[in-house]
Amino acid sequence: MSAAIDNTEDLRLTRLREILDSGAMRSASRLLDSLAPAEIAHLLESLPSTQREILWGVISDNDGEILLNVTDEVRAELVKDMNSAEWLAATENLDLDDLADLVQDMPAAVTREVMDSLDEQHRKRLESVLAYSEDTAGGMMNTDTVTVRPGVTLDVVLRYLRRLGKSVPRDTDKLFVVNRYDEYLGVLPLSQLVSRPSDDTVAEAMSLNLKPIKVHTEDNEVARRFEAHDLLSAPVIDDKGRLLGRITVDDVVDVIREEGEHQFMGQAGLSEEEDMFAPVLASTRRRSLWLGVNLATAFLASWVIGQFEATLSQIIALAVLMPIVASMGGIAGSQTLTLAIRGIALGQLSGSNARHLLIKELAVGSLNSLIWAAVVAVIAGVWFDSLAIAALIATAITINLLFAAVTGAILPLALDRIGIDPALAGSVLLTTVTDVVGFLAFLGLATLFLL
Amino acid sequence: MSAAIDNTEDLRLTRLREILDSGAMRSASRLLDSLAPAEIAHLLESLPSTQREILWGVISDNDGEILLNVTDEVRAELVKDMNSAEWLAATENLDLDDLADLVQDMPAAVTREVMDSLDEQHRKRLESVLAYSEDTAGGMMNTDTVTVRPGVTLDVVLRYLRRLGKSVPRDTDKLFVVNRYDEYLGVLPLSQLVSRPSDDTVAEAMSLNLKPIKVHTEDNEVARRFEAHDLLSAPVIDDKGRLLGRITVDDVVDVIREEGEHQFMGQAGLSEEEDMFAPVLASTRRRSLWLGVNLATAFLASWVIGQFEATLSQIIALAVLMPIVASMGGIAGSQTLTLAIRGIALGQLSGSNARHLLIKELAVGSLNSLIWAAVVAVIAGVWFDSLAIAALIATAITINLLFAAVTGAILPLALDRIGIDPALAGSVLLTTVTDVVGFLAFLGLATLFLL
Repeated sequence: MSAAIDNTEDLRLTRLREILDSGAMRSASRLLDSLAPAEIAHLLESLPSTQREILWGVISDNDGEILLNVTDEVRAELVKDMNSAEWLAATENLDLDDLADLVQDMPAAVTREVMDSLDEQHRKRLESVLAYSEDTAGGMMNTDTVTVRPGVTLDVVLRYLRRLGKSVPRDTDKLFVVNRYDEYLGVLPLSQLVSRPSDDTVAEAMSLNLKPIKVHTEDNEVARRFEAHDLLSAPVIDDKGRLLGRITVDDVVDVIREEGEHQFMGQAGLSEEEDMFAPVLASTRRRSLWLGVNLATAFLASWVIGQFEATLSQIIALAVLMPIVASMGGIAGSQTLTLAIRGIALGQLSGSNARHLLIKELAVGSLNSLIWAAVVAVIAGVWFDSLAIAALIATAITINLLFAAVTGAILPLALDRIGIDPALAGSVLLTTVTDVVGFLAFLGLATLFLL
Repeated sequence: MSAAIDNTEDLRLTRLREILDSGAMRSASRLLDSLAPAEIAHLLESLPSTQREILWGVISDNDGEILLNVTDEVRAELVKDMNSAEWLAATENLDLDDLADLVQDMPAAVTREVMDSLDEQHRKRLESVLAYSEDTAGGMMNTDTVTVRPGVTLDVVLRYLRRLGKSVPRDTDKLFVVNRYDEYLGVLPLSQLVSRPSDDTVAEAMSLNLKPIKVHTEDNEVARRFEAHDLLSAPVIDDKGRLLGRITVDDVVDVIREEGEHQFMGQAGLSEEEDMFAPVLASTRRRSLWLGVNLATAFLASWVIGQFEATLSQIIALAVLMPIVASMGGIAGSQTLTLAIRGIALGQLSGSNARHLLIKELAVGSLNSLIWAAVVAVIAGVWFDSLAIAALIATAITINLLFAAVTGAILPLALDRIGIDPALAGSVLLTTVTDVVGFLAFLGLATLFLL
């Protein structure tokens, strides 16, 4: 009974790897039986390709649940050799919203077979979920709602639920109250159903506070709603106010996890679905693109430097110091950029308060350039024994930090407005600006005043 | 009834700002009444300091809930002028785990008053929650569990809950089954309680599948458990297996959100608690530190360049091209680093599969250096009309990409092992390596072979 959780993931992984190395498949199977599908998915993601394939071959249960829990990339690798019988077995017993997610990855022929295997009612429901984009409330919802009418008593509701018996979904935490036109009226939390007098009516016991979510609402907006109201589940309605289904918090957790990873991975030009052990060629191709984009911006910076070859050849100290100017701008700018990207993602930064952020960031940039321009000036001045170089680098750093603050604050909003994801494109564009401005200010001012 | 969610955040923000600007405080108050505490918290975070203070002055309800939902920094700003009467009002009606979170920010005198205002039972419970670190299951848990014994029938349970009435927490989704020593046995989901025959016993209806969480488990481990098992709530036990409380998914959502933001913000040397509109001086001080650290590494890179002044003064093309070598290494390395940091955070990368990641990243790095070294060589060779420079830069880029792959894969694991957060220190250390290696390889090889 007290088999509790510890940080045993690593232990299990080591053990599993030993088992896979030794080829004792029966032991592997036993270990797998003790794990939840999401835990197996997690282990699969931690394994290099060859071991992953071996382990996947051993797994016989819950294939569908496991596939749902791995990243898109790992899933594509796992399903590539599945035949339609295996697909059918894997998709049995899945929730409708989950099935809808998997259908996207099936070969068309298999999709037809899976569809045919469903009864009329389920097929219709699946088709209705598939009609919505994966990234909207419609794509996240499940249609397994239990609905009741406002006029009946709690006692009647309880008897109704007993009759439904096993068809009440295990994770039901509330019932949805609808009128005869299926229009959403409110919710009846199970905690109320079981704790209020049984002769109360549903209308008396229900809560009106839970606003329904429209079916086309975007998934991160749905996530913010769940967070703001600490929801476990929420009703989804169509444009006419009719109840279509419910979203449960487990799907919201996935959205939040992905949102965080998207921002983090995007900064390095990676997708949140990136598989740690993706095949080398596939990885190389994807990474290559990002390196290419960055190379173009690096050449742009080099070209700027190239315009000042004559200056550089006369004062070699400039070549030694110029990376400092560019680097300080890049660092300061990326701080502002990061704040702004998070603000946009959380819906806290928009046109209406951008001006305040810009002013604040400019103030921070000015103060920081005062401090660090002075420090750099002293060090560079002593190093090259030149007052002129000290003044020069201080001025260039100040200019670059101010540009960095403006770019970091404005760029992500501008990208967002024209429909480009700032988490992906922001940092490469920002460093282009800070490199170019840094080199241009430093070498340009040197050419004007030092030659 | 159909007042559903749209992307109205920005509209509300604009409207609120107009109201605040116009000083029509009664309108502001009316707008606030229509919002949940977390939504007000969200609005407060989106406002610059002065407007934030005005709005906070208008808010009269749910102060505690709002304080809980803003970031630590904003909270510190809001509470700095609160007197103990305001604190007492704010902390009324809070859940125990939430109250425990707020207590950390109270002045000591206020803490005593708040403690004194609680009844004996609540005070003891609060003290027990405060005994655990905020980042563990103990700090996340709430003690408002409803427990039942295995031997009674569901009918008896229902009558018991009706008697408890309003003291059943609204977000209760399951009851906890314990024996007479308070040892955890299993859970009885409300969905089972209401859908199974009422003469079944708790022992028959309860589920044994939910493993309890030990009270000292770390919060991100708790989050992974919730994700793996799609939990809404989970029991927390002490070392002897006794039930201490329960963790609900809303607190887990906060952990996941913070984990994502920590990684993203950490890369830029920011805390996930960073307030977008923090006071300029406070921001400057924090940012300044990060700029200083980065400046030290930039000077290190400059010093490396400085060792080759003689070489640079003879071949000025080297100065023009050298940022490209450093930049390509930095970009490639940060991709590997990002993958590794996510792997560590998810518990998917550890000593046992690090070797596989290293080999894969070296392979990807080799292939990418083949591609891009060739591209750079052609461009640089044509630009400066020199076969020697083409060969030189191709070699230097290859060396730097390989170093970047190794550093990106090994560094975060090494940092993690010695207890330094790779999300914070990783990127600055990585670019130090790629800058130094890049300049050293490029200028060093030039000195050896081109002079």
